[in-house]
Amino acid sequence: MLSIDEALDIVSSRLAPLTPVERHLHDTQGLLLAQTISSPLNSPPFDKACMDGYAVRSADFEQDKPVLKLIGELTAGQVSSQKVNPGEAIRIMTGAPIPAGADAVVQHELTEFNKHSNEIVFKIDEIRAGLNVLNRGEIMREGEAVFTEKTRLRPQELAVLAEMGFVKVQIFPPPRVAVLATGDELVAVEETPGPGQIRNTNEVMLVEQLRQAGAIPVPLGIARDNRDDLQAKIELGLQHDMLILSGGVSAGKLDLVPSVLESLDVQEIFHKVQMKPGKPIWFGQQNQASDRPPKTVFGLPGNPVSSMVCFEIFVKTALRRTMGDDALSSLPIMVCARLTHDHLHKGDRPTYWPVQFELAEGEVRITPLDWRGSSDLKGTVLADGMALFSKPDFVYKAGTIFNFYPWK
Amino acid sequence: MLSIDEALDIVSSRLAPLTPVERHLHDTQGLLLAQTISSPLNSPPFDKACMDGYAVRSADFEQDKPVLKLIGELTAGQVSSQKVNPGEAIRIMTGAPIPAGADAVVQHELTEFNKHSNEIVFKIDEIRAGLNVLNRGEIMREGEAVFTEKTRLRPQELAVLAEMGFVKVQIFPPPRVAVLATGDELVAVEETPGPGQIRNTNEVMLVEQLRQAGAIPVPLGIARDNRDDLQAKIELGLQHDMLILSGGVSAGKLDLVPSVLESLDVQEIFHKVQMKPGKPIWFGQQNQASDRPPKTVFGLPGNPVSSMVCFEIFVKTALRRTMGDDALSSLPIMVCARLTHDHLHKGDRPTYWPVQFELAEGEVRITPLDWRGSSDLKGTVLADGMALFSKPDFVYKAGTIFNFYPWK
Repeated sequence: MLSIDEALDIVSSRLAPLTPVERHLHDTQGLLLAQTISSPLNSPPFDKACMDGYAVRSADFEQDKPVLKLIGELTAGQVSSQKVNPGEAIRIMTGAPIPAGADAVVQHELTEFNKHSNEIVFKIDEIRAGLNVLNRGEIMREGEAVFTEKTRLRPQELAVLAEMGFVKVQIFPPPRVAVLATGDELVAVEETPGPGQIRNTNEVMLVEQLRQAGAIPVPLGIARDNRDDLQAKIELGLQHDMLILSGGVSAGKLDLVPSVLESLDVQEIFHKVQMKPGKPIWFGQQNQASDRPPKTVFGLPGNPVSSMVCFEIFVKTALRRTMGDDALSSLPIMVCARLTHDHLHKGDRPTYWPVQFELAEGEVRITPLDWRGSSDLKGTVLADGMALFSKPDFVYKAGTIFNFYPWK
Repeated sequence: MLSIDEALDIVSSRLAPLTPVERHLHDTQGLLLAQTISSPLNSPPFDKACMDGYAVRSADFEQDKPVLKLIGELTAGQVSSQKVNPGEAIRIMTGAPIPAGADAVVQHELTEFNKHSNEIVFKIDEIRAGLNVLNRGEIMREGEAVFTEKTRLRPQELAVLAEMGFVKVQIFPPPRVAVLATGDELVAVEETPGPGQIRNTNEVMLVEQLRQAGAIPVPLGIARDNRDDLQAKIELGLQHDMLILSGGVSAGKLDLVPSVLESLDVQEIFHKVQMKPGKPIWFGQQNQASDRPPKTVFGLPGNPVSSMVCFEIFVKTALRRTMGDDALSSLPIMVCARLTHDHLHKGDRPTYWPVQFELAEGEVRITPLDWRGSSDLKGTVLADGMALFSKPDFVYKAGTIFNFYPWK
């Protein structure tokens, strides 16, 4: 049986970024740039006042507390036609271009204006050229490389793109992912389960996990445990970039899913991983004509926590790859954390266990929670993520540092 | 001048959660519950097989490696009318209800079925009652309190709600927040700035920060520096839960914003905070008739990083309060982190400085970046958040532990 790391390597190597598309900035937050960006302009575009005050010649301040004549006023958005000559000053507002002749701005609080004489008295002795002036191109220079490909677009990156006039950019789009729950025991969440039935909660969780990961969920409802229904709905699912099947991959007699997938030319790449929960996970791909990327299919176990963990570890890795993350950075996000209490790990399968997470005194701390196993979804609601305990029948001592996988 | 903490206390105490609304589950991710939830059902609703295998009577295993007669088969979704008598077994699939008479499930891998004699040979000696059985109500009991008010709804909480049949829930809704940039120097992002002009990038950043924080942004474009335009657009903005003004609150002559706000009965609560960047921040409220909550207005400085920092610290605190966070938990998210290098803090104002963040060896580590001040938005794009340096003219030594504010 494959180890978790072997399976992750396979998933990561089998997926590639989707074809980049052009999008309006306001529809790109959280996505990765699919182009490099050089600045078409200088920022600021002109020498600019950083303070409200007076634009002056620094040379005039070689004398003690100079008195200068006010010759005009300049607000942001205006360009002065006036020149500041020796002995003169122009009132200037933050953001306005420095007028010709001036080379510094003295802030309002250090001045006193005499309305009758039209003169400004300065309570400052000496100033350097450039005081309170942001020079043209000081922040970004025309032609400068500003963003590399695969930069993640957060609010501040989007604002810098807007400043440079990029209204549309090339990004790696999020994949459309179909979700299909399988099983005769399932009823829609809106319905009341009859004897032996349960609600289709895995669809809810998978759809929300997809949304959280930035993908576009396409819920397909429930497929019954018969070949015709499964085949029809799986074919629908294969029209999207990825298909997640919930249930139908463990050893039961009615677990038709792998066989239906085979009949649809979806090749099994692996089935089962040495882990707990989530061992029965199935991963395959359907090759497409010519240069189109293969369709990826995950078959996740039906137990809710198994489904959740397989999504966090394997499906998220696949999603990150399709959205442009590099092979390495597409692996599950891990944090080195310190255990607060001893933890006994029973059994021989590496186990993802729900833990609470705390940042305190500069340390990352995790505390394993009470949890009854793969059916116990309620046991995950107090957790912030999971820790991987892999040594068979081993007591992990408090203080041990190891891998924590945050859920977010 | 107010300190940061004083200003935060004021913001937090002046805001309250919006009136809860009922929403379909699929439109609630990330929001806080505005009701307590007790389970209307047992989970699982029946004693349930956790493995594919055979439903048996544990008493039959008191003899060595028993041989049992197969009397039927049970898949998930079916309820058996058959009873398992001594010496008998029923083939059962994961998720199916345990049939009457049986009290354990032996997994498929530990059995061998003889088709001719219709008998199952078990490769296991002794089993306990309850083996591989999840009992009715073991995960959740009918009437049990499952979620308290103000639980944050993540995928797993939504799945648990779905399991209990809650298709709609009461949540604290996200606020609608108007964004109005002010200034004669601004042009729309789509336009090419003329002499002395710059693009309206603060709107882009504020809108995206609002989205990231889970609020609903309502961009109102640009108001010019004259009373009529400002007043008309501010009135529009006051129709929403909150209004963010960008620019127009520093000391300049054209900073009309506070005076227009006053004329619209928006009362100044504070103006200026002892911090850098962001000192000129303005905060006020307009009281509403009767029991409706007051409209909140933030006036943020126009420098891009000042705007960004004021949003992260003050506006996010306000947003969290409107979305149901308690006063304490609505404060900025802080992480205790360890400085990787010495850092000289110049000046006497507490300063939020862009830093890179790393989790390594169980430690939270931060490294201050090169940064040219409040106009230098580009200097923030390599940062993961900011650190607050507050001691005047002080060298913070490598290894010092203090507060890091992640951007996310």
